[in-house]
Amino acid sequence: MANVTVNFIECKDKKPKPNADKIAFGKHFSDHMFVMDYQADKGWFDPRIVPYEPITLDPAAMIFHYGQTVFEGLKAYRTPRDRILLFRPEKNFRRLNLSSDRLSIPAIDEELALNCLKQLLKVEKEWVPKAEGNSLYIRPFIIATEPNLSLAPSQTYQFIIILSPVGSYYKEGIQPVRIYVEDEYTRAVRGGTGTAKTAGNYAAAYKAQERATKEGYSQVLWLDGVEKKYIEEVGSMNVFFKVNGEIITPELNGSILEGITRMSIIEVLKDWGIPITERKLSLEELYEAYEQGQLEEAFGTGTAAVISPVGELNWGERKIQINKGEIGELSQRLYDTLTGIQTGKIADTYSWTIEVK
Amino acid sequence: MANVTVNFIECKDKKPKPNADKIAFGKHFSDHMFVMDYQADKGWFDPRIVPYEPITLDPAAMIFHYGQTVFEGLKAYRTPRDRILLFRPEKNFRRLNLSSDRLSIPAIDEELALNCLKQLLKVEKEWVPKAEGNSLYIRPFIIATEPNLSLAPSQTYQFIIILSPVGSYYKEGIQPVRIYVEDEYTRAVRGGTGTAKTAGNYAAAYKAQERATKEGYSQVLWLDGVEKKYIEEVGSMNVFFKVNGEIITPELNGSILEGITRMSIIEVLKDWGIPITERKLSLEELYEAYEQGQLEEAFGTGTAAVISPVGELNWGERKIQINKGEIGELSQRLYDTLTGIQTGKIADTYSWTIEVK
Ligand SMILES: Cc1ncc(COP(=O)(O)O)c(C=O)c1O
Ligand SMILES: Cc1ncc(COP(=O)(O)O)c(C=O)c1O
Repeated sequence: MANVTVNFIECKDKKPKPNADKIAFGKHFSDHMFVMDYQADKGWFDPRIVPYEPITLDPAAMIFHYGQTVFEGLKAYRTPRDRILLFRPEKNFRRLNLSSDRLSIPAIDEELALNCLKQLLKVEKEWVPKAEGNSLYIRPFIIATEPNLSLAPSQTYQFIIILSPVGSYYKEGIQPVRIYVEDEYTRAVRGGTGTAKTAGNYAAAYKAQERATKEGYSQVLWLDGVEKKYIEEVGSMNVFFKVNGEIITPELNGSILEGITRMSIIEVLKDWGIPITERKLSLEELYEAYEQGQLEEAFGTGTAAVISPVGELNWGERKIQINKGEIGELSQRLYDTLTGIQTGKIADTYSWTIEVK
Repeated sequence: MANVTVNFIECKDKKPKPNADKIAFGKHFSDHMFVMDYQADKGWFDPRIVPYEPITLDPAAMIFHYGQTVFEGLKAYRTPRDRILLFRPEKNFRRLNLSSDRLSIPAIDEELALNCLKQLLKVEKEWVPKAEGNSLYIRPFIIATEPNLSLAPSQTYQFIIILSPVGSYYKEGIQPVRIYVEDEYTRAVRGGTGTAKTAGNYAAAYKAQERATKEGYSQVLWLDGVEKKYIEEVGSMNVFFKVNGEIITPELNGSILEGITRMSIIEVLKDWGIPITERKLSLEELYEAYEQGQLEEAFGTGTAAVISPVGELNWGERKIQINKGEIGELSQRLYDTLTGIQTGKIADTYSWTIEVK
């Protein structure tokens, strides 16, 4: 199925590209999108590239009522020599299927999906920004479309990919973020949907984000849903700490999302011979390390920022500053390495990038 | 604002009403729907009754990505004298706003919403089924419509009400259900979204339902997300147990949905002088009561079935049968009372029903 023909309907009026300096995240979309349908009796069918246009759904479509939906997020980068690169995109389609499994959504053919994404990018290659630090954000998603208020998996779905040019996450150099520890609201719990990239997890986090913002912090640190003791994630990023020369990141425990940046960072660290441990890490232990002067660096990881250094933590008024509120040496080195590989500026010794030709 | 003018665009082609005997739940919809928009700078505006028609949204509309959405479910009943009754509808709009608060969605004017629902029902009164046991299911819902992939509350929303004629839950008399105790998947946890009627909670439950179905059970009993010991809900119903003459239902603990049937049952029981306690109840305690011959009845409560007797529980192969797998006397009496009030067959001494004139 991976070499299926993708129909193409070209859009008539091409949009102007947004100004490179002031692209707001997630507000501009390219001229075309990819769409594929699913019916229980047919499987996935009719893959097509069509003009970017509204979706029309019955008001009873299940996506509006029961949240049966999954998504992904990755980027296409333009290299200095004008090649277009994707970073480990097969991992995103792998994770999409894992998410779908949790939400009882039928799997897609991962190879086919990647193939279709490449075709879409070929059509839209002018939309991959040229400016340093900018990129084309790719949002694949699946929605349940059957018009039926029964509580049961949908019999029909749409798989859609839209493209959005985005600016550099760090317009004025990398700024460490100040993080508020959330001890009331819960993002996810084992047995729940935390390991899936599904809509319901995200809106559920707005209340905590609101509070953090009000307190003057830019993101939330999530604790585990059971004991409210162990560190899980930061905002929608995985999180790493450097304690006395060793790197620690929360282990995949059934409620953390397995980030593709996270898995790449772990590989790079191993490659560099820097000790990296995936394990349970309580906030208490982290604060103790801080008291002993051993908490050296902290950073979030995700597609959007790649590395986001954490400069301050506030846990119920116990405020600590990490690395004087500045980006750590290792954080910077990891950032340079990953973004270097992604944008083709340094050799991709891991074979992580795929060129769209 | 409660007496706002509602615009009305009449639909041209009226649909045939479905055959009373074989209405599938949630698949038929009436000729019109209610719609109202929200913009951050305008508040809620343009309430209107329009033909039932597809919703058209940008593919980047936030509902498709981050699950910012809430819904309600209630019914309109036709009495033997052809009056049309709603059962405590103000509680549904109250709960809608509580759900919205959790999901960072702006509140609606509850009185206005009820007023609009009544106007919609006046237009659609022929859609309230006449057949014994049938009713018109009402689904109000709010969706985030802003086209923006940023992780932040939407600046625009739509509030929609659709109507669906439904058959009797019990076509062949009340059949007690067999329930599978789910001890791996979690529906909700304190600090999460369990107390809100929001889409993400529902698709997340399909995996557990799948397993229950495969094992030959019709619904799932959910345990608390923290200790996996305490009883929370059954399927999408609240649950009650009669133990040695006393009624016990799990207390509102921050992860259970507060059912309107639940609150009504509690009031009726108090009124009847039957001891009713809201408290933590572990499955272990329930099984012990069973061993001692004290577990007399069990039933779920919700708008769909009103009362759904539980005939069997299976907790990791510890199977118990309740009241010989038959409906209990108290369950039957509660069912008769509530459905009697809802359909105007017995006096509504609680003033719970509201007539649509
Ligand atoms: C909840 C959550 N955690 C972590 C991540 C980081 O994952 P990745 O590195 O694949 O972008 C994301 C975002 O993508 C996320 O949504
Ligand atoms: C999760 C959940 N619990 C309980 C209920 C019962 O609530 P009510 O009695 O208001 O219908 C519902 C359904 O409405 C529900 O979705």
